[in-house]
Amino acid sequence: MEAEGTRNELNEQHPMKGGDGLYSYANNFEIQRAASDATKQLINMAIAEKLDKEILLNSKTFRIADLGCSVGPNTFFAVQNIVEALESKYKQCQELNSQISEFLVLFNDHTTNDFNLLFTSLPQNRPYYAAGVPGSFYDRLFPKASLHFVHSSIAAILWLSGAPKEVMNKNSPDWNKGRIHYLNSGAQVVRAYKAQFVKDMEQFLQVRAQEIVYGGLMVLIISGIPNGTHHSQGLQCMTLDLLGSCLMGLVRKGIVSEEKVDSFNVPIYEMSPQELEAGVERNGCFSIETIEYIHHKRLDNHSHSVMNAKVFASHVRASLERIIKKHFGEDILDVLFDSFRKKIEENPSIFKSVKKVNFFVLLKRRAAN
Amino acid sequence: MEAEGTRNELNEQHPMKGGDGLYSYANNFEIQRAASDATKQLINMAIAEKLDKEILLNSKTFRIADLGCSVGPNTFFAVQNIVEALESKYKQCQELNSQISEFLVLFNDHTTNDFNLLFTSLPQNRPYYAAGVPGSFYDRLFPKASLHFVHSSIAAILWLSGAPKEVMNKNSPDWNKGRIHYLNSGAQVVRAYKAQFVKDMEQFLQVRAQEIVYGGLMVLIISGIPNGTHHSQGLQCMTLDLLGSCLMGLVRKGIVSEEKVDSFNVPIYEMSPQELEAGVERNGCFSIETIEYIHHKRLDNHSHSVMNAKVFASHVRASLERIIKKHFGEDILDVLFDSFRKKIEENPSIFKSVKKVNFFVLLKRRAAN
Repeated sequence: MEAEGTRNELNEQHPMKGGDGLYSYANNFEIQRAASDATKQLINMAIAEKLDKEILLNSKTFRIADLGCSVGPNTFFAVQNIVEALESKYKQCQELNSQISEFLVLFNDHTTNDFNLLFTSLPQNRPYYAAGVPGSFYDRLFPKASLHFVHSSIAAILWLSGAPKEVMNKNSPDWNKGRIHYLNSGAQVVRAYKAQFVKDMEQFLQVRAQEIVYGGLMVLIISGIPNGTHHSQGLQCMTLDLLGSCLMGLVRKGIVSEEKVDSFNVPIYEMSPQELEAGVERNGCFSIETIEYIHHKRLDNHSHSVMNAKVFASHVRASLERIIKKHFGEDILDVLFDSFRKKIEENPSIFKSVKKVNFFVLLKRRAAN
Repeated sequence: MEAEGTRNELNEQHPMKGGDGLYSYANNFEIQRAASDATKQLINMAIAEKLDKEILLNSKTFRIADLGCSVGPNTFFAVQNIVEALESKYKQCQELNSQISEFLVLFNDHTTNDFNLLFTSLPQNRPYYAAGVPGSFYDRLFPKASLHFVHSSIAAILWLSGAPKEVMNKNSPDWNKGRIHYLNSGAQVVRAYKAQFVKDMEQFLQVRAQEIVYGGLMVLIISGIPNGTHHSQGLQCMTLDLLGSCLMGLVRKGIVSEEKVDSFNVPIYEMSPQELEAGVERNGCFSIETIEYIHHKRLDNHSHSVMNAKVFASHVRASLERIIKKHFGEDILDVLFDSFRKKIEENPSIFKSVKKVNFFVLLKRRAAN
């Protein structure tokens, strides 16, 4: 898995599972929905206070992109929020009253996302024109200076463009043998993941800087770890470590080959707000207008000590099913997630030391110097 | 089938069959491809001679919509033509040289079109950004004054928004009993179809007039009948009449109920260039820059006396399969098109009196008075 092509391949595996089966994302949207509820006010404030009137005045069509939109009720919930906040700004602002723009929402996700389902689920009588834009958000997706508002929830940057090549290379000193992520791996594996994150973050900001008009806003809602927390306490890290040990269990039972596990690394990096800030500052094209933790009962509950093993396993399956299926085949899915669920049931406080945070970031495109 | 909802339902049935099966559109693209070849020069001329330089100079992003794009090799062939012609205009024009726009292509078709297939087939390294826009082209699909060039091949206006309601109403004097189209029907059925065409044409032009910038171009490539030809000589009319008689054959064999056939009318109207001109003049928002017959060996052969029954039946099936399946169920498809093919084989010159024409129309959005 060293070829350049492999990263693109992985790149195409991230979209949540489409359709409406038991394990599909559309049935596992509670956490995203809680994040949306909690961010509604933050988005309203961002638009009311941080969006320059000139942008509204100068755009006949106000273009909004939702990156990593997936398919599910939240896909439309977040966008509806944004459009309502914009309409309300128009209404409150006398000067803008005669200049109401039309809204165009560009729903982006990987090519393998179920756009057919997305299109048939579009709300009737929506107050915006809709289009689907396939492709990785690490690439240019939109024409220059064509976006006024970008939104990306949870998906953003959490998924790397691919796992670092060296950790999957048997001949590299950074080879991550017997693990599928960086928790409990050597320092060099963590470094490789971090380097991949820094590179991807820069790439993400570079391409967005080209696409967003000066003064345009970008909202990122990210699931990560609090500042000053060691990655070993991250929910994703602990989850993937547990899943990795379940996979090694399948190796011992002869169901999966050890080489298969050794060559599988999940391209997820769990960042802290500080790491995000550092990336934005390095890039230099955006100012950080707001960065804050999102507190919400359901979100907070979710990250606490005892969790519902069945619900949690089904949520993890929904987000990882594609990537696991592609690497290991479909047959292992049920047995793998059964074993995952059982381990949590046997030790319901397994995640009690988790330090998890959802944070809201509002960036504004700086004008060129 | 009298409810208003029915027309919307029919409206959603038109897209060509997706996937890549034996009867799919992607495998039946020869006729459209021939039209594309033949229109390449006409499109080049349209862009070189009729597109105002100001439009290129004033648009950072040049937006092209392909209406009724379907899924197949031609989807990208036509658009590639247009972008190349635009690039060549930029190159030839010194003044424009420093101002090269980026291109955004908006691929439109009904919501039931296979956009997942469309997105995975997008050419690598294409010289344009791509988006999919689901919906009927009889509705508004794009923001105001947001399009610079609209292209629609064959699909345009040939498919009505729905069959006239009265021809499917048992209690109406216009009821089209025992037929699925207007050939050999009473004058009132023909009138109802014509009225539907006039209404749909006006609707189509009205919504496009709002979406296209002043001076923007719209190319329609239409399969119809020559001026002064009676509709009984139209290829679509004769085809649908033959198919209707095959369906009545299935009624006699007890495979299909007569009521089912009586309530099925195909929403296709075969127009002449004159009828199109009249519609454009009535609407008043566009000037007709070019209107001409497209001559091409393959196209001309296709419309001539003796045809390959198997190829032709498969082409007809590709374009009508969805609508027939939805009304009659999947089971009748094989037997229906077998019987259709056999009728042509038994009488290979059945279409010898056909008068068919493909014509190219270039419209320009008039500035408001």
